Amino acid sequence: MAKKVGILTGGGDCPGLNAVIRAAVYSGVIEHDLEFVGIKYGWRGLLERNTVPLTLEDVRKILPEGGTILRTSRTNPIKKAEDIDRALSGFKELGLDYLIAIGGEDTLGAAYRLWRGDKNFKVVGVPKTIDNDLSGTDVTFGFDTAINIAMKGIDRLHTTARSHNRVMVVELMGRHAGWIALEAGLTGSADIILLPEVPFDIENDLCGPLRKMKERGREYAIVVVSEGAKLDVERDSDGSYFLQEIDLDEFGHVRLGGIGKILADEIEDRVDWETRHVVFGHLQRGGSPTAFDRFLSTRYGVAAADAVAEGLSGVMISLRGTEVKPIEMTDEIKEIKTVPENFRRYARLFTARNE
Amino acid sequence: MAKKVGILTGGGDCPGLNAVIRAAVYSGVIEHDLEFVGIKYGWRGLLERNTVPLTLEDVRKILPEGGTILRTSRTNPIKKAEDIDRALSGFKELGLDYLIAIGGEDTLGAAYRLWRGDKNFKVVGVPKTIDNDLSGTDVTFGFDTAINIAMKGIDRLHTTARSHNRVMVVELMGRHAGWIALEAGLTGSADIILLPEVPFDIENDLCGPLRKMKERGREYAIVVVSEGAKLDVERDSDGSYFLQEIDLDEFGHVRLGGIGKILADEIEDRVDWETRHVVFGHLQRGGSPTAFDRFLSTRYGVAAADAVAEGLSGVMISLRGTEVKPIEMTDEIKEIKTVPENFRRYARLFTARNE
Amino acid sequence: MAKKVGILTGGGDCPGLNAVIRAAVYSGVIEHDLEFVGIKYGWRGLLERNTVPLTLEDVRKILPEGGTILRTSRTNPIKKAEDIDRALSGFKELGLDYLIAIGGEDTLGAAYRLWRGDKNFKVVGVPKTIDNDLSGTDVTFGFDTAINIAMKGIDRLHTTARSHNRVMVVELMGRHAGWIALEAGLTGSADIILLPEVPFDIENDLCGPLRKMKERGREYAIVVVSEGAKLDVERDSDGSYFLQEIDLDEFGHVRLGGIGKILADEIEDRVDWETRHVVFGHLQRGGSPTAFDRFLSTRYGVAAADAVAEGLSGVMISLRGTEVKPIEMTDEIKEIKTVPENFRRYARLFTARNE
Amino acid sequence: MAKKVGILTGGGDCPGLNAVIRAAVYSGVIEHDLEFVGIKYGWRGLLERNTVPLTLEDVRKILPEGGTILRTSRTNPIKKAEDIDRALSGFKELGLDYLIAIGGEDTLGAAYRLWRGDKNFKVVGVPKTIDNDLSGTDVTFGFDTAINIAMKGIDRLHTTARSHNRVMVVELMGRHAGWIALEAGLTGSADIILLPEVPFDIENDLCGPLRKMKERGREYAIVVVSEGAKLDVERDSDGSYFLQEIDLDEFGHVRLGGIGKILADEIEDRVDWETRHVVFGHLQRGGSPTAFDRFLSTRYGVAAADAVAEGLSGVMISLRGTEVKPIEMTDEIKEIKTVPENFRRYARLFTARNE
Repeated sequence: MAKKVGILTGGGDCPGLNAVIRAAVYSGVIEHDLEFVGIKYGWRGLLERNTVPLTLEDVRKILPEGGTILRTSRTNPIKKAEDIDRALSGFKELGLDYLIAIGGEDTLGAAYRLWRGDKNFKVVGVPKTIDNDLSGTDVTFGFDTAINIAMKGIDRLHTTARSHNRVMVVELMGRHAGWIALEAGLTGSADIILLPEVPFDIENDLCGPLRKMKERGREYAIVVVSEGAKLDVERDSDGSYFLQEIDLDEFGHVRLGGIGKILADEIEDRVDWETRHVVFGHLQRGGSPTAFDRFLSTRYGVAAADAVAEGLSGVMISLRGTEVKPIEMTDEIKEIKTVPENFRRYARLFTARNE
Repeated sequence: MAKKVGILTGGGDCPGLNAVIRAAVYSGVIEHDLEFVGIKYGWRGLLERNTVPLTLEDVRKILPEGGTILRTSRTNPIKKAEDIDRALSGFKELGLDYLIAIGGEDTLGAAYRLWRGDKNFKVVGVPKTIDNDLSGTDVTFGFDTAINIAMKGIDRLHTTARSHNRVMVVELMGRHAGWIALEAGLTGSADIILLPEVPFDIENDLCGPLRKMKERGREYAIVVVSEGAKLDVERDSDGSYFLQEIDLDEFGHVRLGGIGKILADEIEDRVDWETRHVVFGHLQRGGSPTAFDRFLSTRYGVAAADAVAEGLSGVMISLRGTEVKPIEMTDEIKEIKTVPENFRRYARLFTARNE
Repeated sequence: MAKKVGILTGGGDCPGLNAVIRAAVYSGVIEHDLEFVGIKYGWRGLLERNTVPLTLEDVRKILPEGGTILRTSRTNPIKKAEDIDRALSGFKELGLDYLIAIGGEDTLGAAYRLWRGDKNFKVVGVPKTIDNDLSGTDVTFGFDTAINIAMKGIDRLHTTARSHNRVMVVELMGRHAGWIALEAGLTGSADIILLPEVPFDIENDLCGPLRKMKERGREYAIVVVSEGAKLDVERDSDGSYFLQEIDLDEFGHVRLGGIGKILADEIEDRVDWETRHVVFGHLQRGGSPTAFDRFLSTRYGVAAADAVAEGLSGVMISLRGTEVKPIEMTDEIKEIKTVPENFRRYARLFTARNE
Repeated sequence: MAKKVGILTGGGDCPGLNAVIRAAVYSGVIEHDLEFVGIKYGWRGLLERNTVPLTLEDVRKILPEGGTILRTSRTNPIKKAEDIDRALSGFKELGLDYLIAIGGEDTLGAAYRLWRGDKNFKVVGVPKTIDNDLSGTDVTFGFDTAINIAMKGIDRLHTTARSHNRVMVVELMGRHAGWIALEAGLTGSADIILLPEVPFDIENDLCGPLRKMKERGREYAIVVVSEGAKLDVERDSDGSYFLQEIDLDEFGHVRLGGIGKILADEIEDRVDWETRHVVFGHLQRGGSPTAFDRFLSTRYGVAAADAVAEGLSGVMISLRGTEVKPIEMTDEIKEIKTVPENFRRYARLFTARNE
């Protein structure tokens, strides 16, 4: 008899989720004689037994669509003991043999814990985060779409910044890791890139280089900053002043969504150069996935169906080099992959020009 | 001997400025034996005698570029008597027979006043505003590019809003006229559109319809609002409360750049529906112009060269129906063209669905 | 009782058809108490009584989709007497009070003739052609999308042509009128544009100017040609030779789809300049409509519902200046609107640079 | 004293070439005290001593531009003994210490042979092919841009195919390897994908599946075919017939540029389903690179400067997993990397649905 497989998507939405779902169903039905059911709104749907059918016909046209046809939520089923029970009983009641859980550190972490607690709760995880900061895989889908949107936006800002002789500060996603700011900034020809990984000194890392650019006659400048970039409170010569003025938390983080505006104000004050800021926000995560993300998601989906067919559990799909394959889930799933030194070097190199 | 023509671009930058410059130079040099000089940074360049050559070769490749190769500024030469003198003497010193002034109400208003004061200061105006709110012409270039960028952004927000069951509030440009919000909102399938022309009641025009949508099972909603949309302080049942909470000016305007966030907060409070906001800001004015804007700008540029060749002055180029032609400038240049009733109807119609 | 209105789409598909359908249904249901039924595959669906429901819910999400949810065909119901009878009886059997026919000269011509023959067959036409060559309206929807796609394609070809020092010949749609080649060519910075309206001499209008460009050191050239561009067989010095070589019809037309390749071969032979050609073909008509097309289509749809509500028949919707309104259909519907002299001038102007 | 490094680009142009040049110059000048000179038109420029300066300022703005600022040619300097001498003497005369050669199998092969013949001719190669078929690296730049362009084009064709109930045949680049057809076809939701690696039987692999799709009620179909896809002349039941009709070479290849049309004709004949074809051609290789290609090219350029600084020669830059690093060049550079079985599986899987 065909194994019955539930699929759910959890956490923030991301271009490519539908491509994973479609590919898993295609491979599962055509190659492995699996049967699928969609669980709506992530873990919440498992707790509430909220499901939809998932046949070949249901998934045939969804590849180019952003978001997730299964919808999503941030419900975490392992926070309360009763939810753990409801999740496990939901799995049984729905007659599932397997669950494919597509999500980020929270979703995969919960899947891993549930499986650890009850080995009948068989799970295959598919890693997802638009921020590209999951340790278990080289690249996550959705990231390529996000940086292309951000890069094209930055491309457009060059002409308006140049026409007005302005500095333009662009705030991009990335609370704990600077992948989006790094790659969108580099590919968008940004002059200065500030990442969460490298706490910055507002004078030496930002205003000083901008002042020199202005003195040397550069017509305009583009600054790209991660939302999670933080001040180096020890090194910063003006740290104490700066700290009093704005709302920083204990780690030197500016409150969410605000750093772009604050930097723009500081630049105008300190460098005397007209400055504007833009926050790309939700524009970075919507819409149809790029070819890279459609293909990677498709590979992830096929590999997830393969893993189910092989009877694996407690694994997640991973890209390593050119290969997509299952690896064992561990507690390290929740480790953040930050931008390493050899990538930070690129940001320094293209900024160094301005010093 | 060839007439010598100066060209300047003033006010906010706008996709299509380079196309006007290129077309005026092409038509002027090839068809009318004119000679051109570029005046940098708008009126400031005339006051400071800051110029660049403008030959066919200089403009050959600039059509697809956003912004303006002549750069721009908001310098207004008629605010001080001494600047008026410097502008008029600059015109003479540079040996100009004509000036083509490309800009919005301020730039054209200044050009008109200078010419009225000294009929030797011969000017041809080319209307420019990304907001499409100039009375003297059916459409201004740059507007089509802006609404396409905004529409594509809204298109992308649908998938993320749907995946998360959210309301998404999109704040677009338009301080005094709602053209961008109207056309980007309509073409982006927005559920509710708020324009500066129609002061809104936060309960009846926004939260009430959203509540009904939610009750009827709609998964998500898109709200588009002009930055200049204002509260109907008389009609609004909660006006007094609302007024105390936020920073409104005497006309009911929310402070610039802030209305999107305020509405998002109100919606979450009153409707109990998760809501996010995005401010498109400068993304709307940069980048390569659309085909419509490249073609309209080209027609404007050719018509400006024609007007110079015919010896006209005190005119501006205008699109009327399918025809591009010079019309006399008057003091009414500064009148804002707001969204008229027959266009507001479209916003009501597609919103009405939600009531 | 609510009037019952059928809607059909006929002829080649075109971005914006769904927007017309949606807007007509929205306005009809919400503002005018009309009821709608979709007729599938154009006139064929009327002959075969092939229909689908069209409620607000059916059309809510279709605005950004290219093509037509009603599908289309080239079936013409007035070619055979029996089809005329089947069309008229279909109208009655389906209980229709009105028909909104969206299509080009054939579709509208048939609607007009059926109505002329039987005044109970009440029709409102909505003009559609991607070629923009219908006389009854200033602009048709779909055209803007087509020229943007073509323009962006041409933009891309510049970099490859320049890198290789090549001539690139781009063949665009336009059998009888050159609107697409004119506007995509102009906005794509083409060096030479050949239209059906101006029969060309292969030496004087094409190879001669290219030879001069090459001699003057231009690195590359872009030639844009309508598929329907034709040889001036009287003027062309090499006409007799050229005529023997290639397959021309009696009017000097090259067989469909072939002129781009033929011109590329001739250029390599005569100018000794490496040349490649690209035929954009069906890429020009698919996909999501631009903002201009979505808005124009929406206005057409609303105006069609208005016309039905007013009890008009034998009319078509038309854009005149900034106004969208019904005009009477006449036999002149079938007249082609070719590119007039004041628009051809633009092509000459930007080409003249090369002479 | 600073080492002097020449850079050249050879073979077909490709998005990302300018990004490599810029990054090599940035890293070389800022981090390694190198000095650069640009060699124009590939190897031809070395033979003819045709060079341009390459300072930081020369490369500052070129990142988003398609093509190559150094231009390119297909000149191969190792075909004639005298050219080998001219290349070696050119290297000396220009005072070069190093050459960075960016190109495909021909360019790199020539660089390798010249260095093998004279170890003073120090070279670092950077692999380039839009077809992604070079063995020495996981991915080549330009490929991601090409598949995104192709995928978006295919996306557009879906709506027009569906509206008309048609089969659409899309011919993509790929003479010897099917990477572009595979990835653009998969990500463009193609129904059938034909690659050079898997000779096809026109009945069993194409017309049969299409006939079944039609019988099952599918409204339309998308077929993607590599320009180099070839007939399985042994297996094909109609091979002998088919061979007589069309122009195949000894390996079963259809003549370049023609397979899309031929398949479209065959499908109409055999399946009785209206079919159109489109050849994307040069549209696939022009224009601004995607984020992926800009970033990969930047990494290649930095790694090339690093290799020069380290004194390496006879190496080429390679992406292996997430690492970009130099590897030794060998005669195997010229080996084509075809689509392997685990990737072909994807094409079969999504096609299998149709059988």
